[in-house]
Amino acid sequence: VKSAAALPRAYSKIGDDVAVIPAGGRKVVLKTDMLVQRTDVPKQMTFRQAARKSVAMCVSDFAAKGVRPDSFMVSVGLSRSVKESQVRELSLGLRDASRRWGLRLVGGDTSEAAELSINCAMVGFADGYTKRSGAAPGDVVAVTGPFGYPPAGLKILQSGARASQRFRRKAVGSVLMPTPNLRLGLALASYWSASMDSSDGLARSLHILSKASRVGIEIDKVPVGLGVGEFAKANGFSADKLVLEGGEEYLIVGTMRAGRFRSAARVARANGGELLKIGRVTRRAGGVVFRVGHTLKPIADSGWVHLR
Amino acid sequence: VKSAAALPRAYSKIGDDVAVIPAGGRKVVLKTDMLVQRTDVPKQMTFRQAARKSVAMCVSDFAAKGVRPDSFMVSVGLSRSVKESQVRELSLGLRDASRRWGLRLVGGDTSEAAELSINCAMVGFADGYTKRSGAAPGDVVAVTGPFGYPPAGLKILQSGARASQRFRRKAVGSVLMPTPNLRLGLALASYWSASMDSSDGLARSLHILSKASRVGIEIDKVPVGLGVGEFAKANGFSADKLVLEGGEEYLIVGTMRAGRFRSAARVARANGGELLKIGRVTRRAGGVVFRVGHTLKPIADSGWVHLR
Repeated sequence: VKSAAALPRAYSKIGDDVAVIPAGGRKVVLKTDMLVQRTDVPKQMTFRQAARKSVAMCVSDFAAKGVRPDSFMVSVGLSRSVKESQVRELSLGLRDASRRWGLRLVGGDTSEAAELSINCAMVGFADGYTKRSGAAPGDVVAVTGPFGYPPAGLKILQSGARASQRFRRKAVGSVLMPTPNLRLGLALASYWSASMDSSDGLARSLHILSKASRVGIEIDKVPVGLGVGEFAKANGFSADKLVLEGGEEYLIVGTMRAGRFRSAARVARANGGELLKIGRVTRRAGGVVFRVGHTLKPIADSGWVHLR
Repeated sequence: VKSAAALPRAYSKIGDDVAVIPAGGRKVVLKTDMLVQRTDVPKQMTFRQAARKSVAMCVSDFAAKGVRPDSFMVSVGLSRSVKESQVRELSLGLRDASRRWGLRLVGGDTSEAAELSINCAMVGFADGYTKRSGAAPGDVVAVTGPFGYPPAGLKILQSGARASQRFRRKAVGSVLMPTPNLRLGLALASYWSASMDSSDGLARSLHILSKASRVGIEIDKVPVGLGVGEFAKANGFSADKLVLEGGEEYLIVGTMRAGRFRSAARVARANGGELLKIGRVTRRAGGVVFRVGHTLKPIADSGWVHLR
């Protein structure tokens, strides 16, 4: 039996996407995340989707760290008004997620609460994982897909923003059924020098990577999803703002040696995804800037953060 | 990297106090439990105490399974009205618990929620653990201390039940500062044939053990704590009912070969606890009865269960 006191330095610091605990030769990788009705569940989301999302939130962090999750436990808080059919829906959502990502539900617990809340605690095993702190000057900055669909979907669901039927389906779908690409995350594991998931928003993720790695990040292309520009224009939003500040995105934001990008992009395509180069890592510690021609515009650290 | 699909049978079933996942030669032991303000936090409990309790709830399960917990993560739901001083109190409570039980806090997450909720996900490593299903006819049934203080404390806090100052301090203290004896749990690990924690109440724990082990349990002594009888009488409660049906007790209920009891009791005393024999295991599958002389009174499966 391992004693915590005997392992003072081997633990990962609080603040990465996951916690890493040495266990013999291997590492136990842990993530816990709580979905709460008022902030994480739009009223159009079913209980089945909410349960699935609570698992997706953890899977996204494992994907970003290149670690295969093995199993998970849930703690569910239910209000008194919940119907039995909704509890059945929750089970179905957990089953959906288990099947989608090859996970095993190993335990659960139910409490009475003011609103629906689902805590997912996920565990996996790995020999290593990608940290947030490995970015080096000269690396490219890349993301595993275009941004903007979930924030657009939230605008459609919550404020009735207008959209074409096709865009609406894609944007709303990305909110109700977030689907981190775990296969892609595992395939890219050995390419990243630093990585993290983007659930707090792209700008915030870039700032976190830049601080953790003590480097600067210079973006020259905002990865705006197809149709996001038109949607933003039609509703009087800024597409860049939607992409940079929006949250609920379950993509990976990371850095890698420039020479590895082409090969990584091929791997991404072979795993049902894509890899978009959006900028590069510089020496200028701690800053995130947007290069337009010869001017540099600072990008604020203002992604989606609860309780701010 | 281990795949969940490759390990179909090695996982412990959902339903024990903890989940157990094979990891190479050893086992990863996991527990997650959510503390929710409305059901788990009496209004007299401070945020510091609530945070400490959320960890104690998990420690209690590890103690009952004879496994040393190594580290934990918390997900905290906070209402908008929470003050900064209360957030600091939460941190202090987590520190209290970490120190008390030699644990490491390896990660955390904060969400906005309708009420305070704290999910603790705890991990430990072990070669084995005590299941709920090992009780055999002839075994003695034992508990690691007298019952009744937490339910009495709740009656004092929530319905103004009267009590002597001394009893009040002990009973209320057991509610606000639950302190599972982890050292005792680890020391007794090799003695139990079956064990579980008693947080859902003594009667409920006995029923669960009897079902899991497919045996009967015959109680001949209800382990009523010192002063609980007088307290119950003065307030018009039944002490037996308080002890059998009350919850929030963080003691261990278990069974062991009769010949091992004396030695186990010695070990318990050497570890700051005690071991009380309260009955024996019989062949009569699934029933829990109270023997008074020659009559057997069935004990209902009616401990403290949320949402019943």
